Amino acid sequence: MVIAVIGGSACSREEGEMAEAVGREIARRDAVLICGGLTGVMEAACRGARAEGGLTIGILPGADGREANPYVDIPVVSGVGYARNLAVVKSARAVIAVGGSYGTLSEIAYALADGIPVIGINTWSLRRDGKEVNEIIQADSAEDAVGKAISLKRR
Amino acid sequence: MVIAVIGGSACSREEGEMAEAVGREIARRDAVLICGGLTGVMEAACRGARAEGGLTIGILPGADGREANPYVDIPVVSGVGYARNLAVVKSARAVIAVGGSYGTLSEIAYALADGIPVIGINTWSLRRDGKEVNEIIQADSAEDAVGKAISLKRR
Amino acid sequence: MVIAVIGGSACSREEGEMAEAVGREIARRDAVLICGGLTGVMEAACRGARAEGGLTIGILPGADGREANPYVDIPVVSGVGYARNLAVVKSARAVIAVGGSYGTLSEIAYALADGIPVIGINTWSLRRDGKEVNEIIQADSAEDAVGKAISLKRR
Amino acid sequence: MVIAVIGGSACSREEGEMAEAVGREIARRDAVLICGGLTGVMEAACRGARAEGGLTIGILPGADGREANPYVDIPVVSGVGYARNLAVVKSARAVIAVGGSYGTLSEIAYALADGIPVIGINTWSLRRDGKEVNEIIQADSAEDAVGKAISLKRR
Repeated sequence: MVIAVIGGSACSREEGEMAEAVGREIARRDAVLICGGLTGVMEAACRGARAEGGLTIGILPGADGREANPYVDIPVVSGVGYARNLAVVKSARAVIAVGGSYGTLSEIAYALADGIPVIGINTWSLRRDGKEVNEIIQADSAEDAVGKAISLKRR
Repeated sequence: MVIAVIGGSACSREEGEMAEAVGREIARRDAVLICGGLTGVMEAACRGARAEGGLTIGILPGADGREANPYVDIPVVSGVGYARNLAVVKSARAVIAVGGSYGTLSEIAYALADGIPVIGINTWSLRRDGKEVNEIIQADSAEDAVGKAISLKRR
Repeated sequence: MVIAVIGGSACSREEGEMAEAVGREIARRDAVLICGGLTGVMEAACRGARAEGGLTIGILPGADGREANPYVDIPVVSGVGYARNLAVVKSARAVIAVGGSYGTLSEIAYALADGIPVIGINTWSLRRDGKEVNEIIQADSAEDAVGKAISLKRR
Repeated sequence: MVIAVIGGSACSREEGEMAEAVGREIARRDAVLICGGLTGVMEAACRGARAEGGLTIGILPGADGREANPYVDIPVVSGVGYARNLAVVKSARAVIAVGGSYGTLSEIAYALADGIPVIGINTWSLRRDGKEVNEIIQADSAEDAVGKAISLKRR
């Protein structure tokens, strides 16, 4: 089972701690962590998963594997820039967003377009034409987020 | 000057009429229309631009130029699936969103990530971590939307 | 009718003159020229087409339209790096290769994989497992190359 | 250390046996196998690596992880079609080509463009403007190919 963690390449201390806890919990539940392979939320999540002996995959935008953060076990060097956001979410059973900026928003959009569950912690929320769209499932802890990522079914 | 029109491949009658009016106005202002090349909002916008003698470019997701709607002058067959959403917005000076679903949201996110102005008509609105994010500029008519697309500067 | 011209971003004087003549001939035959939008063979071909009043489209690898050579009418900013090579050839009815290095070879491969005719002038030739593969059609002048690009059918 | 194996999704029995032997040898040398994740040479190589307890990664072109052959441990669902060929080779230290058709040729071209060593077994050979280009290193057995993949340096 593969779970994606998405969020900004720059993040607050609180977001980093939450991402690390999410990474730890993914590894404890014997899932594989996939992410965009860079810094910030991605690095914190990989560090957490690594600390628990989990496997981490980083799908890099650029053309150089050395861009990967030091906690990525398998860097995938996509060469397609931010089109790699598609691969991060499509490769996962579910996606956990921690904070995040516009790159994260594009990943949330791609996941929801495909019916892949998105669990959010302090991330984007959406209205369309003035009406709330509640497809991002809220979680209030790392355990809650990973539990939902494992149990929710793809639409 | 190239302006992108984005929105769903299925759309309501009102959205179709608005997209067609936007397309007409883009051509009247001597701008080139770029879009995803398919049906719905994309087709309506191309039909409007064509009616005013404008040039229309459709960046298709698939591998077959015949997917293009009949009002696309230049089909670009990207072969990269919905990674083509990047090209639609990055090729434009500004982006006008009419309605739209998750594909449109991914395009809005990519545009804002790059500082490309997004003008919205009955489309998505965003909060991040509970706070309003007002980077999508509201417009209430086709003329208003295209006028803003032409005058707003890239961040 | 859209015809692609492919070749190196650096090229010899002879290759540049040939590419310019190919661009001129494409415009004279009322076809649209598509290319990768950069320097070398791409720029020479666009300059030729522009001199005859033709329309030129450049599919750029990067994220900045200012990378386009000055003879590109419509820069498409793909954002997907050298995955844009797919779009250059798939958008065309036929592909004309002038010289070229490995990027050009990837474009030839993508075109032949899709059954799109490839006409070559001093470019790659191929053997597979020791046997000649003669799917690249040789041309000896710009007129010959463009004539073949217009008349050959997709497989 | 990650090594890519590339080749046709349809292959001869001899090619399948060779690919399986290459996969076995990659795992015996404690390297990770990356490939395009589909049938033919890709499946045979994964089966070989799996038989020796190795880790296998398949970078799929489409949007459905179930396209992966049954010997892929980690399917990466790229969503970018044959632009995924970039990721297959760029993620590897070296590339081993077994037979192959035009998709394989595009991968060889992308690897050589980046200076990534390509080792070939009964695969493409290249001339440019009539002159032999000998950058594809010949191997005559699985052991020879994998040995070279491990020892050759990136240009």
